[in-house]
Amino acid sequence: MSDTPIPTGPFGGLTRLDHVGIACRDLDASVEFYRSTYGFEVEHEEVNEEQGVREAMLRINGTDDGGATYLQLLEPTREDSPVAKFLARNGEGVHHIAFGTGDVAASAAGIGERGVRVLDDEPRSGTAGSRIVFLHPKDCGGVLTELVQSAH
Amino acid sequence: MSDTPIPTGPFGGLTRLDHVGIACRDLDASVEFYRSTYGFEVEHEEVNEEQGVREAMLRINGTDDGGATYLQLLEPTREDSPVAKFLARNGEGVHHIAFGTGDVAASAAGIGERGVRVLDDEPRSGTAGSRIVFLHPKDCGGVLTELVQSAH
Repeated sequence: MSDTPIPTGPFGGLTRLDHVGIACRDLDASVEFYRSTYGFEVEHEEVNEEQGVREAMLRINGTDDGGATYLQLLEPTREDSPVAKFLARNGEGVHHIAFGTGDVAASAAGIGERGVRVLDDEPRSGTAGSRIVFLHPKDCGGVLTELVQSAH
Repeated sequence: MSDTPIPTGPFGGLTRLDHVGIACRDLDASVEFYRSTYGFEVEHEEVNEEQGVREAMLRINGTDDGGATYLQLLEPTREDSPVAKFLARNGEGVHHIAFGTGDVAASAAGIGERGVRVLDDEPRSGTAGSRIVFLHPKDCGGVLTELVQSAH
């Protein structure tokens, strides 16, 4: 155990479940499923060339840290992207979960000190200008885990 | 498409991401990981004999429908339970996601009319006196999906 305290509160700590990332083969069909079945609407859509995904964010609810929880639907844009490899191995389904933080670098540093491998040396670009890091799923009970700091 | 409107608002519709269910082999170790790594604490723990699981609910944040979002850690109590079979096939990781509703029977009926197979004819007992149904993952883009109505 590290002596460094876990950052807490709205800045520094993990204050919400930000999103669940779901890998799909056809983003438009997946968006239509969530819209027509549950009434969830797309709030944001973009292509992330670095990660090789086309993605849509569906807002589910607001959270008490002033943020929100989303489903993030992910379609690969190329065969060598991590999401394409996930689909080839596992088929469609939940790809990762993401916790929201007010300071992703501080949260990553604190969690890294606790023995969890942080897969990114520096935060990189996530959805809608957010800054993100991923944690190694083998250090997180098999769960690919993302930390995300919103742009706003 | 059915003509029946999707129930909306705090009663009838899906108003929050209630929890992410995570299958683990050792509940106590998993609880300790989430506590010591992120500071998440157990709000509730129980054994559900019908589903063959010992489980812990870790509260992540409050939601704007008056509920909350949790991680639900699930350890199988017997080899023939669905979670034990999941672990044998996939290893540890995300098992299902659950949406909260004010009326699980109405939500299940509306979603069933949209062509999604509801795996329970009647809602059954979930965590902490909640009433739940599961939807067929093959009708939900590979995501085992639960609908949950809290007891309170």
